[in-house]
Amino acid sequence: MSHLSDNLIGKDALLLVLLGEEPDPGVLSKMQKLNWRYCVGKVGSMDSKKVVAAIETAAKSNGIIKPDIYRESHALYHVIIEAIEGVTRGQMQLGDVLRTVGLRFSIVRGNPYDNPEEGEWIAVALYGTIGAPVKGHEHEAVGLGIFHV
Amino acid sequence: MSHLSDNLIGKDALLLVLLGEEPDPGVLSKMQKLNWRYCVGKVGSMDSKKVVAAIETAAKSNGIIKPDIYRESHALYHVIIEAIEGVTRGQMQLGDVLRTVGLRFSIVRGNPYDNPEEGEWIAVALYGTIGAPVKGHEHEAVGLGIFHV
Amino acid sequence: MSHLSDNLIGKDALLLVLLGEEPDPGVLSKMQKLNWRYCVGKVGSMDSKKVVAAIETAAKSNGIIKPDIYRESHALYHVIIEAIEGVTRGQMQLGDVLRTVGLRFSIVRGNPYDNPEEGEWIAVALYGTIGAPVKGHEHEAVGLGIFHV
Amino acid sequence: MSHLSDNLIGKDALLLVLLGEEPDPGVLSKMQKLNWRYCVGKVGSMDSKKVVAAIETAAKSNGIIKPDIYRESHALYHVIIEAIEGVTRGQMQLGDVLRTVGLRFSIVRGNPYDNPEEGEWIAVALYGTIGAPVKGHEHEAVGLGIFHV
Amino acid sequence: MSHLSDNLIGKDALLLVLLGEEPDPGVLSKMQKLNWRYCVGKVGSMDSKKVVAAIETAAKSNGIIKPDIYRESHALYHVIIEAIEGVTRGQMQLGDVLRTVGLRFSIVRGNPYDNPEEGEWIAVALYGTIGAPVKGHEHEAVGLGIFHV
Amino acid sequence: MSHLSDNLIGKDALLLVLLGEEPDPGVLSKMQKLNWRYCVGKVGSMDSKKVVAAIETAAKSNGIIKPDIYRESHALYHVIIEAIEGVTRGQMQLGDVLRTVGLRFSIVRGNPYDNPEEGEWIAVALYGTIGAPVKGHEHEAVGLGIFHV
Repeated sequence: MSHLSDNLIGKDALLLVLLGEEPDPGVLSKMQKLNWRYCVGKVGSMDSKKVVAAIETAAKSNGIIKPDIYRESHALYHVIIEAIEGVTRGQMQLGDVLRTVGLRFSIVRGNPYDNPEEGEWIAVALYGTIGAPVKGHEHEAVGLGIFHV
Repeated sequence: MSHLSDNLIGKDALLLVLLGEEPDPGVLSKMQKLNWRYCVGKVGSMDSKKVVAAIETAAKSNGIIKPDIYRESHALYHVIIEAIEGVTRGQMQLGDVLRTVGLRFSIVRGNPYDNPEEGEWIAVALYGTIGAPVKGHEHEAVGLGIFHV
Repeated sequence: MSHLSDNLIGKDALLLVLLGEEPDPGVLSKMQKLNWRYCVGKVGSMDSKKVVAAIETAAKSNGIIKPDIYRESHALYHVIIEAIEGVTRGQMQLGDVLRTVGLRFSIVRGNPYDNPEEGEWIAVALYGTIGAPVKGHEHEAVGLGIFHV
Repeated sequence: MSHLSDNLIGKDALLLVLLGEEPDPGVLSKMQKLNWRYCVGKVGSMDSKKVVAAIETAAKSNGIIKPDIYRESHALYHVIIEAIEGVTRGQMQLGDVLRTVGLRFSIVRGNPYDNPEEGEWIAVALYGTIGAPVKGHEHEAVGLGIFHV
Repeated sequence: MSHLSDNLIGKDALLLVLLGEEPDPGVLSKMQKLNWRYCVGKVGSMDSKKVVAAIETAAKSNGIIKPDIYRESHALYHVIIEAIEGVTRGQMQLGDVLRTVGLRFSIVRGNPYDNPEEGEWIAVALYGTIGAPVKGHEHEAVGLGIFHV
Repeated sequence: MSHLSDNLIGKDALLLVLLGEEPDPGVLSKMQKLNWRYCVGKVGSMDSKKVVAAIETAAKSNGIIKPDIYRESHALYHVIIEAIEGVTRGQMQLGDVLRTVGLRFSIVRGNPYDNPEEGEWIAVALYGTIGAPVKGHEHEAVGLGIFHV
């Protein structure tokens, strides 16, 4: 049987987006020791597909997924959609229902289980604001998706 | 106009559930200085309504909302549902689709905006695992809901 | 081409549930003149399927649909589900997310279009309260479904 | 404990949109006696965000909410989305799934509870037609959202 | 009472889209003997409304529904939406969440029940691929909707 | 780059459930030649979790997934949920909204792409009836889910 180890991929992805512009050194050094791949980025848009595209582009250009292998893109796509569901809570639409997001995102790839057979998983964390297209008319939102690659 | 201040109610609620059994002393002392009310707790269930009830009970018994005022319960209810949407991503059902959750939760009440007229807001953060009713067959999940009280 | 006539089946169904215990005499006499069939009833429950069943039973026992013809039950079922979606707004669950409803319902069957070829349509209107299982911790809700029979 | 009084904010909002171009004088005089704020309007579109924007603009230009206070806009936004869910029943999209709406809307602000501590609530009612972008190929729809401000 | 006969409208619609470019002669001859109307077609798009429109246009130009009778368009519309829900599984959006479909569709009209009073029903089947807007980055998807006309 | 080959895992899974009690010999022999694993079964219930459980049990007892590896159960779970979404179209509830299903299911595991690096994928197809808990008051429904294992 497999169990979640102390190397929690979701928690690490969340800390990367929560703890400010500079990723937490403790999280970074742990991920390097584990040989986990990761990146962070930012995206602001009223257009859901730009959020999806920004994260996909970052994952490919940082070597977190192989662009030619569909199963890797497919895993990442589902992870992104699940993370956006946490941010949008109920309807995935942004501009179509007159709202906008400003988000930091992180992508982490590694095995969070104690059993090496579990292979690699990918986590996407989103944290930032959602609200009306008026500066300050917004509140915080978070989302996390996790899938095996 | 109002803007989000540095006192980010959602981020604080998330750090309370992410940083282990013992809430982070930095977060706690900041919340005390701001006179924000908060509590943390745990709930594990295959039954969505037990998750809702556990958070409602904690909010009332810790004096975070007034049980007799419906607007306070109503705000909290919507916050809880939004947080659960982040955890369940698409369908709010747990046991009905054969899955279970084990979650830490936090509830924080205060004004995260620079304008005192914005009054009080309430945040509920959830972090833990979701998966099959089999030990270890689970991954992490997070949710955050925020509403004015 | 067909157009909605002044005999608005949805509006009539809504007025039947909004205007108190005694259905509005103006609405009633208009529906009798048009030979429209209708009934009203009440249901309170934390269980969605009891709401569905109460309306189906009323429709059959009042001769609004023929119980043996599946296409009539099928039309009514979709109408009921659409009306409940207006009441629940997003997730159809009641007790599973710790909430309850107290509703008046009406069912109206007739042709609201100026073209007789449009045949018969069925409308279900719901009006009442939704909220916590605590007296007074509730607000109003409404729903309307319309389908051709 | 608080209970819904006879001053039912949702019912009044619904009667304002159901009873024709001229709002019912009985409803209007009751709302004036209670010092409730309200307005009515119309919007037709294949674009969900235009429905949202038309109601937000009416609420601000009629002094029903204060444009500078985010909690007021935030409450109104959730009320509008809930009302649209009753109209669209399942998927909030309009033109994206090739359908259009023609709606009357009302916005009412006041305290519908017997306890003054419940403060102010806001209701948005929608009533009109939804259907194909072909004249007459449409049926009626209704929606109601209610939130504390 | 009515029962589903051996003339299964959904199965026939599915076989028409699954069995290649040339519809299965067995299915075709059975439908001709039953006097069922049907057609097949293809649509590829990132835009949900183009999928809806392509099927509606085919149904009208092949005489499967009468364009002037709203109840026929209304039935077809709901059937199409239900079929698309099978293809999109959760969120009806395509391009808005950066994905595209390439689908074969079939429309079949007839009575699948042993009781002639059940009248005519309409089935829409969809089969093809859904995925990223990158050739080969896609997997198969299917959908089926059925309604009485 | 990878492309879907002629060995279409979803089409094969669908043909296994559509073509009667005895799986099509052409499909079976093709799957054996490819060394694909598969099984078929039946489940009837008003309870969504029994549908999930029946398919999971069949997959494990037929050696299609390894019960001890969570990534395999996790992939299968998502595939099942996606297939059920095609059957239920909008709300995953069955008995909770007073409906029941009678379904044949198939599970197929193999690589449908021309690139061996795409590894193994799993497809679940569902076909049968959904309707009221009254014999004959039902129509056909289909669902298909596909994921990399």
